[in-house]
Amino acid sequence: MSSLPHDSNTDMTSSLTATYPWTTSPLVTCAPMRLIANASLAAAVSVAGGLGFIGAGSDISTLSSELSQARDILTKANISTSTGVLPIGVGFLIWGAPLADTLAILSKPENIPAAVWLFAPREPEQLKDWTQGIRKATNNKTKIWIQVTSVREALEAVKLASPDLLVIQGTDAGGHGAAQGAGIISLIPETIDAITDLCNSSPSTPLPFFVAAGGISEGRGAAAALCLGAQGICLGTRYLAANEATIASGYRDAVLSASDGGTTTIRSSVYDQLRGTTEWPAGYGGRGVLNASYRDHEAGVSFEDNKKLYDEAVASGDQGWEGERARLTTYAGTGIGLVKKVMSAEAITREIRHDASKILSGTSASRL
Amino acid sequence: MSSLPHDSNTDMTSSLTATYPWTTSPLVTCAPMRLIANASLAAAVSVAGGLGFIGAGSDISTLSSELSQARDILTKANISTSTGVLPIGVGFLIWGAPLADTLAILSKPENIPAAVWLFAPREPEQLKDWTQGIRKATNNKTKIWIQVTSVREALEAVKLASPDLLVIQGTDAGGHGAAQGAGIISLIPETIDAITDLCNSSPSTPLPFFVAAGGISEGRGAAAALCLGAQGICLGTRYLAANEATIASGYRDAVLSASDGGTTTIRSSVYDQLRGTTEWPAGYGGRGVLNASYRDHEAGVSFEDNKKLYDEAVASGDQGWEGERARLTTYAGTGIGLVKKVMSAEAITREIRHDASKILSGTSASRL
Repeated sequence: MSSLPHDSNTDMTSSLTATYPWTTSPLVTCAPMRLIANASLAAAVSVAGGLGFIGAGSDISTLSSELSQARDILTKANISTSTGVLPIGVGFLIWGAPLADTLAILSKPENIPAAVWLFAPREPEQLKDWTQGIRKATNNKTKIWIQVTSVREALEAVKLASPDLLVIQGTDAGGHGAAQGAGIISLIPETIDAITDLCNSSPSTPLPFFVAAGGISEGRGAAAALCLGAQGICLGTRYLAANEATIASGYRDAVLSASDGGTTTIRSSVYDQLRGTTEWPAGYGGRGVLNASYRDHEAGVSFEDNKKLYDEAVASGDQGWEGERARLTTYAGTGIGLVKKVMSAEAITREIRHDASKILSGTSASRL
Repeated sequence: MSSLPHDSNTDMTSSLTATYPWTTSPLVTCAPMRLIANASLAAAVSVAGGLGFIGAGSDISTLSSELSQARDILTKANISTSTGVLPIGVGFLIWGAPLADTLAILSKPENIPAAVWLFAPREPEQLKDWTQGIRKATNNKTKIWIQVTSVREALEAVKLASPDLLVIQGTDAGGHGAAQGAGIISLIPETIDAITDLCNSSPSTPLPFFVAAGGISEGRGAAAALCLGAQGICLGTRYLAANEATIASGYRDAVLSASDGGTTTIRSSVYDQLRGTTEWPAGYGGRGVLNASYRDHEAGVSFEDNKKLYDEAVASGDQGWEGERARLTTYAGTGIGLVKKVMSAEAITREIRHDASKILSGTSASRL
């Protein structure tokens, strides 16, 4: 995109968007949100010139079906790739997803995704097993994205697996991330410097691309992330308000009505406990809207009592997200206050790309 | 600065740097770090075309002397302003600093600072008292900066005091800030939108300028903050490694050797307790390097035992910051890993301004 100042020295043979020929710079992606980012959302992001991810998570029982639905949408929209991959990605929580069964699905010629996104190994070596397995099963057609939350994790991932891309997730992100961490303002430049030094000193390790995640809700955050050194941006919370997200209306309305995310969301393991998603390895927590479940936990209400109240809220449906007594898990990032209305995923994707480009090309007013 | 794309629509009569005529865009400021940002550091930042702040904090016993020293440095460097203010700022923790005595110092014609920076009121109404008091005492010559940590605080500050500028501090910042909060990636755009809406609906309330703080260590973070909508940037941690900072060599060396600040720093009230700086209002915590004092606290070591070990570390001097058993308070932000060497405050200030401008004017390479 010629309006982007960063493009001046870009070698297009090695640009991120050239890797995914249906995409437009800067690359906008949707996070592989488990249960929420299904075929409809992921395909819509790709149709808009981004790269959508299906959130398989730790459960691949519906993956074949979701890939089939995505393929239908993408084919109808005439989105295809010269290399024959499905112009979409799939995200896995590799502490739980079964590698062999996953490879059996992904290796089918009609299923080979443009990218897989790996997160949260139980042992770091899993990153190597998954990367090697996927590269072999897809004949190197599928690009490997690894999500990291610290400089240390980034160095480990590159040393072990040499991924094509690192997703650098700051602590402002919604849903799961490191229980303790930095925002992207410092995490991205430090991580890029450390990985660049590593790759310079190890010529056999190619420099990965970098995508920023965590707290980006619109064009300003996207432009900021590109200034920090990322080549693409990933949004989760913003896409909760996409028409194509698989989300309860109570959850979506809770996202739309929240503001001031630094004070109204919190990273915690309480929501995992109440939901029963307790298989996560140590060191992770989920950021969500701070509601009665969290307040009661902090006030010393027993887990049993809190769980009972939670289950009653589940039974009440969308009301479980309403008002002061809302208790249902509402994973979302600190950028929740910038999410104001429901839009199509295509419109969200195009708007963010447009606004980021506009800011970087200097057509926005300021008072410096 | 013509290389900044944002400048295209700038009305210079209302630009931030025009308010401080010795400064160059984008405005770089040093945080008013108590005990550390004294005359030597603050004046050096202003000499370099930024705006330096003396960190008076809650104690004004040395303020007259520091202002006098700053005046000498600034006069020798031939930095002056057309309006006769001292081209420097002073920061106060208004939960503790005495207003009447402060006004007596600041109102002396030779002392009138270009800006005061107010933070952490015990009651919000203090913001109004301090703003009105300073404006009256300095005949409106001193600009009022108020530091906020959330959208809610920003709205409250503007409604109560209508400051000239809001410093929007994200949770990545070192030292004191909100115990819970967002990074600037989401906090700045949401705050600016909320304040803009407020000022648009209340024509008697002028729109303040916005300065970003928290996690910015160098040019990339600075450029990012400007994309988020800030007109200036504030750095604390980076200036800990300025020649002109008043800092123990053990503390400075601990800053230089730390990396991966999301995992190696933590926001907590433990360090305040050990240092005896316990007068802070509720809701604040200080981010510092996660060391043995914090680990022992988390492991259940009693306060008395931890305090004894802390006092022994104080007595050991610079060794108290060394190695695995370091215990002394090392306030620093998540950007600590980007602070690699000691430089003059002038060189730091010029480098950040230059690098931010370069990134925004698109001369940096990327691989979008």
